[in-house]
Amino acid sequence: MNKLVIIFGGDGFCGWPTSLYLSKQGYDVVIVDNLSRRKIDEELGCKSLTPIQSIENRIKAWKDVTGKIIHFELEDISQNYNAILELLKKFKPSAVVHFAEQRAAPYSMKSQFQKRYTINNNINATHNILCAIVDSGLDIHMIHLGSTGVYGYSSVGLEIPEGYLKVKVDVNGEYKQMEIPYPPHPGSIYHLTKTMDSLIFGYYNKNDNLCITDLHQGIVWGTETNETSIDERLINRFDYDGDYGTVLNRFVMQAAIGHPITVHGTGGQTRAFIHIKDTVKCIRLAIENPPKKNDRVKIFNQTTEQHSVYELAKKISKLSGAKIRYFVNPRKEDRDNTLKVSSKSFLKLGLNPTKLNEGLMNEIHKIASKYENNCDKSKIICNSVWKKDMIVDTIGSETPIT
Amino acid sequence: MNKLVIIFGGDGFCGWPTSLYLSKQGYDVVIVDNLSRRKIDEELGCKSLTPIQSIENRIKAWKDVTGKIIHFELEDISQNYNAILELLKKFKPSAVVHFAEQRAAPYSMKSQFQKRYTINNNINATHNILCAIVDSGLDIHMIHLGSTGVYGYSSVGLEIPEGYLKVKVDVNGEYKQMEIPYPPHPGSIYHLTKTMDSLIFGYYNKNDNLCITDLHQGIVWGTETNETSIDERLINRFDYDGDYGTVLNRFVMQAAIGHPITVHGTGGQTRAFIHIKDTVKCIRLAIENPPKKNDRVKIFNQTTEQHSVYELAKKISKLSGAKIRYFVNPRKEDRDNTLKVSSKSFLKLGLNPTKLNEGLMNEIHKIASKYENNCDKSKIICNSVWKKDMIVDTIGSETPIT
Repeated sequence: MNKLVIIFGGDGFCGWPTSLYLSKQGYDVVIVDNLSRRKIDEELGCKSLTPIQSIENRIKAWKDVTGKIIHFELEDISQNYNAILELLKKFKPSAVVHFAEQRAAPYSMKSQFQKRYTINNNINATHNILCAIVDSGLDIHMIHLGSTGVYGYSSVGLEIPEGYLKVKVDVNGEYKQMEIPYPPHPGSIYHLTKTMDSLIFGYYNKNDNLCITDLHQGIVWGTETNETSIDERLINRFDYDGDYGTVLNRFVMQAAIGHPITVHGTGGQTRAFIHIKDTVKCIRLAIENPPKKNDRVKIFNQTTEQHSVYELAKKISKLSGAKIRYFVNPRKEDRDNTLKVSSKSFLKLGLNPTKLNEGLMNEIHKIASKYENNCDKSKIICNSVWKKDMIVDTIGSETPIT
Repeated sequence: MNKLVIIFGGDGFCGWPTSLYLSKQGYDVVIVDNLSRRKIDEELGCKSLTPIQSIENRIKAWKDVTGKIIHFELEDISQNYNAILELLKKFKPSAVVHFAEQRAAPYSMKSQFQKRYTINNNINATHNILCAIVDSGLDIHMIHLGSTGVYGYSSVGLEIPEGYLKVKVDVNGEYKQMEIPYPPHPGSIYHLTKTMDSLIFGYYNKNDNLCITDLHQGIVWGTETNETSIDERLINRFDYDGDYGTVLNRFVMQAAIGHPITVHGTGGQTRAFIHIKDTVKCIRLAIENPPKKNDRVKIFNQTTEQHSVYELAKKISKLSGAKIRYFVNPRKEDRDNTLKVSSKSFLKLGLNPTKLNEGLMNEIHKIASKYENNCDKSKIICNSVWKKDMIVDTIGSETPIT
């Protein structure tokens, strides 16, 4: 196995720190990106709290500080199939990592434009990569970033397994055991695309024996990794807005600038989390532990802990003194839920998770406070709603909204 | 409920006879089609055995013989979202029927071009319709043509239910009952798109309370309905080629022109079937029996009988004297399978199925013989393969290929 890896979407929030980490670990890294995330910043009139550099400057800075070279190719892989095929033939990677999808649930719900963009972009990107791997005739391991959200948050009380569920089925009066893909319950157009991706993986694995790993990742928190913090020019994105900001990072940032912490509904929604430092390690572990030839799609739950939104808000409020303010939940979901996600596989492979308390204060002070002048406060409240008739409440309530 | 219905893909093999039947039954019919099936004829260098007229002539002929008006709109709904939205607002249909997908499994496997076209066309068409229904704010029932192929052909021996499967799941040592969407097992890129469609339906049903019926249809045989046979200008397509020809129609046509009957593999593959006359009736039954508001997606198995490919070949051989010839199976599938599909719902609603023997000889003589001079014999053998390294055997064997 060579150590050449192509990172589709390698300029994004997870893609960039992963590219640096893998480069540091001795991989030859090729980033392929259409810079769509930066373009969406323009569309939303909002940008990263941290001063991210152009991809050219990022790559130059990496070379300056480490001597290592990362290749970059500007391509829209949802559109330009031949580019993917040529890149595979040219670089002959042993693995490709696929981050090249629109990744925000609220953005995917804004209007028909964003819904259709998310479907079209994500599905064609995923399919084009797999189709090109088959066409290339090369033996390439595909690693994809999925979401724990595909499982839904209303399980019957079981610990959600890693992708496959054992069930019993009545066959003419006799119960037979089957193992099936965990039934998907997508809660947004974005999550829908991840469940559709899973079907594409299952198909290409079965028909073409492709070697595929799907990582169902929790909500990422944190910003910096060991690599991105070497030099300010390498800094990672920090999204704090209602569309792209992930819940914990938003809360941390709100507390840092003295804004009330914005909880949707009751805050009783339980979610799965992972620190960005663990994301990059998990990707390496996935690359280095591919499924065996002819194995089914390998699915990891890439998450290290679960918390309710209210618990997180309370924790940050206590640390910072910030008030909690409740807003109407723009999502169509249960008021509260329990969630238990099995994630033994990465622990078995040696992952030593960064848990919530350790890095938390560090994040608040180092990033949010340092760059607070970059914050556009009008972008903090989420105004994407799951159904047209939902009312966006910009004031917020002092008590949970049921 | 008004009786205005939009038929997306109303110029195709199932769409055209459905449009005529519904028009006859008193519906106001609007056909929306990009004529892609006719364009693919050009790509494949092959055309319908029957002399189908242009859509303009078809509609004119229908007016001539019945006085009824069918509207036609030339639109590519996978591309032009606004056109769908405008049509919904203009016509305010109570139901839309969605046939506007690339519908041949072998075509979907030809090469990267056809794989990508099938994914892109089918997924965007389906999503655009649903997104536009939400955007329109209208209460519109969506009826979609799925395929029994989504269930796969390797069930554990149970009768395949209509879309949902009851299972038991171990929750901390206690078995709990759940009803889940039947786990999909798509056997081609075409079938993959139908399983992805199902996820889109489930999502829009749950998030936006859309009223959706998905019809998992068996392989259609026959060509003419009562309406298409009124006037030769109304005649339906008859595909006999290796890509678009459905198995039974191909065999009937091969027998009629004195070509050996082309069986793939052992012929032990069991499939579900339905006559085109029943297709059109099922669509009407689906329109007139929508799911209740807030019900889940309603799924019918739209098939009336199951047979193995070998049984069909033997039956036609016996009737016609034609020889059977075996070819390497270009599909990646089990050598043989049993298949039992539950299809109680349409029977309960009053469907009186056209079974295999009745119409069979009629089809052979009336259609295939009459137009046999239109047959290009070089198009009879299927040359689309499921994996690159498969060998297309144009000679054929006298004995089953295992």
